[in-house]
Amino acid sequence: MWLWELCSGNVGEISSSVRTNVKGVAYANNRIWDTAEYTIPTQAVNSFFVMTNIIKTENQSKQECPEVNMFCDLSCFSTGIQTGRCVDYNVTFKTCEVEAWCPVQPMENPPEPAVLRSSEDFTVLIKNNINFPKFNCTELNIPQDFNNSCTYNKTTSPLCPIFRLGDIVQEANQKFSEMAVKGGIIAIRINWDCNLDSWFYDCSPKYSFNRLDDKETMPGLHFRYARYYKLPHGEEQRTLFKVYGIRFDVLVFGGKLDILIPKKSTTTLVLR
Amino acid sequence: MWLWELCSGNVGEISSSVRTNVKGVAYANNRIWDTAEYTIPTQAVNSFFVMTNIIKTENQSKQECPEVNMFCDLSCFSTGIQTGRCVDYNVTFKTCEVEAWCPVQPMENPPEPAVLRSSEDFTVLIKNNINFPKFNCTELNIPQDFNNSCTYNKTTSPLCPIFRLGDIVQEANQKFSEMAVKGGIIAIRINWDCNLDSWFYDCSPKYSFNRLDDKETMPGLHFRYARYYKLPHGEEQRTLFKVYGIRFDVLVFGGKLDILIPKKSTTTLVLR
Amino acid sequence: MWLWELCSGNVGEISSSVRTNVKGVAYANNRIWDTAEYTIPTQAVNSFFVMTNIIKTENQSKQECPEVNMFCDLSCFSTGIQTGRCVDYNVTFKTCEVEAWCPVQPMENPPEPAVLRSSEDFTVLIKNNINFPKFNCTELNIPQDFNNSCTYNKTTSPLCPIFRLGDIVQEANQKFSEMAVKGGIIAIRINWDCNLDSWFYDCSPKYSFNRLDDKETMPGLHFRYARYYKLPHGEEQRTLFKVYGIRFDVLVFGGKLDILIPKKSTTTLVLR
Repeated sequence: MWLWELCSGNVGEISSSVRTNVKGVAYANNRIWDTAEYTIPTQAVNSFFVMTNIIKTENQSKQECPEVNMFCDLSCFSTGIQTGRCVDYNVTFKTCEVEAWCPVQPMENPPEPAVLRSSEDFTVLIKNNINFPKFNCTELNIPQDFNNSCTYNKTTSPLCPIFRLGDIVQEANQKFSEMAVKGGIIAIRINWDCNLDSWFYDCSPKYSFNRLDDKETMPGLHFRYARYYKLPHGEEQRTLFKVYGIRFDVLVFGGKLDILIPKKSTTTLVLR
Repeated sequence: MWLWELCSGNVGEISSSVRTNVKGVAYANNRIWDTAEYTIPTQAVNSFFVMTNIIKTENQSKQECPEVNMFCDLSCFSTGIQTGRCVDYNVTFKTCEVEAWCPVQPMENPPEPAVLRSSEDFTVLIKNNINFPKFNCTELNIPQDFNNSCTYNKTTSPLCPIFRLGDIVQEANQKFSEMAVKGGIIAIRINWDCNLDSWFYDCSPKYSFNRLDDKETMPGLHFRYARYYKLPHGEEQRTLFKVYGIRFDVLVFGGKLDILIPKKSTTTLVLR
Repeated sequence: MWLWELCSGNVGEISSSVRTNVKGVAYANNRIWDTAEYTIPTQAVNSFFVMTNIIKTENQSKQECPEVNMFCDLSCFSTGIQTGRCVDYNVTFKTCEVEAWCPVQPMENPPEPAVLRSSEDFTVLIKNNINFPKFNCTELNIPQDFNNSCTYNKTTSPLCPIFRLGDIVQEANQKFSEMAVKGGIIAIRINWDCNLDSWFYDCSPKYSFNRLDDKETMPGLHFRYARYYKLPHGEEQRTLFKVYGIRFDVLVFGGKLDILIPKKSTTTLVLR
């Protein structure tokens, strides 16, 4: 049987906030990539995304054009947005014609090496606050003597809140250049390792990292988005992006059920 | 009195990741709607949104024009962005003039039937990983013999991770055509029904669905967003969208307090 | 030793949904700011963001131009996107030339007073549902006799779900005009204060507010985003925004571990 002890006071409702700032500029595919380009969406709660690879299809507009993989011989079933016509895709074969944003984005694999593989050198500053409203008290992961040119290192600089993306991925036992091709999800865990007996007096964050999407079965993270333009005569065009990238989920542990500890164990129950 | 037992080992920190890919194309209102058009934002954590209805106001620019519901007789109080003038809204009545993105979007109800009601036939592939870093172990909701042309069915195909949106909404006891008009929120619950005694050996996901926004009082989910254009001489214009849609929140249960089980009960405490 | 009691039934899985609608229009910097302008992203789960300050850099395009803070004398190291040339930044000093989105956004402080300080008067309607699927039961924070012209007041109108942003910030003991300059994060807590013995019969929301980002060390919340345009001859331009604002995180408490109560304490463990 387990006995449970509650820590000395009622800590009440606890909450955590995470803010991130990614820095770095890359030059690739004849284009400058800065924060406004490679973070999509521009902000999220407890999470940030950095684009690592891209397939771009420019100047799409509403037209009729051959689909990319609906091969045909003579005619096509006309359902939904198919016109029913079987047309030349290229000199070798024919595909069904569709009403679509044309030209249709080809069904190709993501480029290798990844277009934005140099995002490995980007850095992120993570600001994490833990709030105990009842005690009117806040813990922050920024050290008192914070040097804003530091870089996190597990051994030599374990409290620096600025992380090189390549280091994060390496600490999660992944290879950045590989992961950049199809994208993926990495967890950045912040574990507030606090001594409950003297709650606010020994409380510092420990960072750890692991990959969250499955590396073997269907790895990767991608989505499509578009930028819309209007031509001078009013017609709408768009540039379609198939974007691959790494989403970093910042998971904060330790502020919640640490108050409840089993007496016969060194186990710390940590719930998010 | 309840006694509590901890499962045999300390499972440590557990985390879940969710990735979704929505597929489907619709033709409506003389426009082609593909993923890049109907998912806003293009990606979110543990959630995806599919547009089902829309009110579009094109070619707005900064001007002075009559408001849509501030009716007036002769003059208007000039506060904030009101010019103070009472002007013709149409041949029947007058409204206050405002400095605004003109023409102002009319205060009309969402179209019925919903513009994108055919999104009922879109499908979504949901990839969910559960991670036990301490055990260096990952569970994934993609079956070993995954057939990517399968569709989830409660009875005949309960492990297929591809869901037809119409089926999800029906399983939540809602009518898609009705819900599409004003939008709403649907929970997709993934319950990892694991046997704790042999933790990693009997662990498969169970799916269930329910509506989260209140159907009776103020149902629906909508927001406004705009696309910005510049005219050849540099003036800014925008197209304003009032977008209605269904947000699907993917809620993963089972990985967190299953470790703590009451001895005198078959109850499983499941926390998120 | 603490004894624990479980409430009479197994409440099963509980979930909460939050929908928000921000209202208000401001006129500032010769521009009209409505919801589609100042909420970024246009929707989020359990959170909404209102822009309060902005630095805008118009008509950026890919060129070579002087950096803003890499001062130089004669030449520059050419790494990455530096051209290696040391050029005139202005009549006083020289900086390194870079290939960039030019003109480069200056490294200036956010405007004071904040451009959109009048967002203090915007209001937000918060709709929060709690769902107990097992009981097929939903609690909603909209009162039966809801008057949609009410405004929340701690004392006189504690159940009105419409909040003036300025009031929220004041209740969190912050000054709106100050916080608007650099932005920040405010928690809106909804505490479902339910009597467990008669679970569904005495259940009403209590609201409280506090600031989540650290006021002393590196306060604020900002990010960059861009709007893209194409010139008539096809060249791409963008307007870059450095956006400061307040993110309001809606935290719902009470539906989760209230089922577990310590016998010898008045403590209510409330987990999210």
